[in-house]
Amino acid sequence: MTPDVFQDLDRTIHEKGRMGIMAMLAASPEISFTDLRTALAMTDGNLTTHLRTLQEAGYVTLEKSVRNRRSLTSCQLTPVGRNAFREYVAALERFVASNRNI
Amino acid sequence: MTPDVFQDLDRTIHEKGRMGIMAMLAASPEISFTDLRTALAMTDGNLTTHLRTLQEAGYVTLEKSVRNRRSLTSCQLTPVGRNAFREYVAALERFVASNRNI
Repeated sequence: MTPDVFQDLDRTIHEKGRMGIMAMLAASPEISFTDLRTALAMTDGNLTTHLRTLQEAGYVTLEKSVRNRRSLTSCQLTPVGRNAFREYVAALERFVASNRNI
Repeated sequence: MTPDVFQDLDRTIHEKGRMGIMAMLAASPEISFTDLRTALAMTDGNLTTHLRTLQEAGYVTLEKSVRNRRSLTSCQLTPVGRNAFREYVAALERFVASNRNI
């Protein structure tokens, strides 16, 4: 492999937990905090920390609302986040292609 | 995507620097510490730390020798390391496959 294949990988997305969050969000228009937490089997604290990192990178937005008297946080990918995730998946694909026959 | 697609990823290999080391070692029978460091543009300390983690997982062996009066450390993948890297690449491939059309 050429080393630059893996240098391309966006560290913000590459962390395993955030990779899962980004993939879940890329597949749906929005997901509630609770559903994300359940699907990814994360703790509240862990998911909160990862979402903050993704928010600071401009990849994710969080919206708080009240539904049936309960507060609900819904998470969405931003257009910038979607592009970054596409590029990340493309970089992984190049890595896989150059490491398939080992 | 189904969340288990990304849960499969071996954290020892997934860290970006170690991913690069494993890919380099998978492509050659052995590589010197110096060549690895140059190819991956890492500091001595960084490469040493990552190699130690890989060694502790049983994925890599280091061999010290003296050549032309200079000490030389050469790094090799173990059979266990090669298998783990193959599984890692296969898991990445599944992740890419389920996230290609986003």
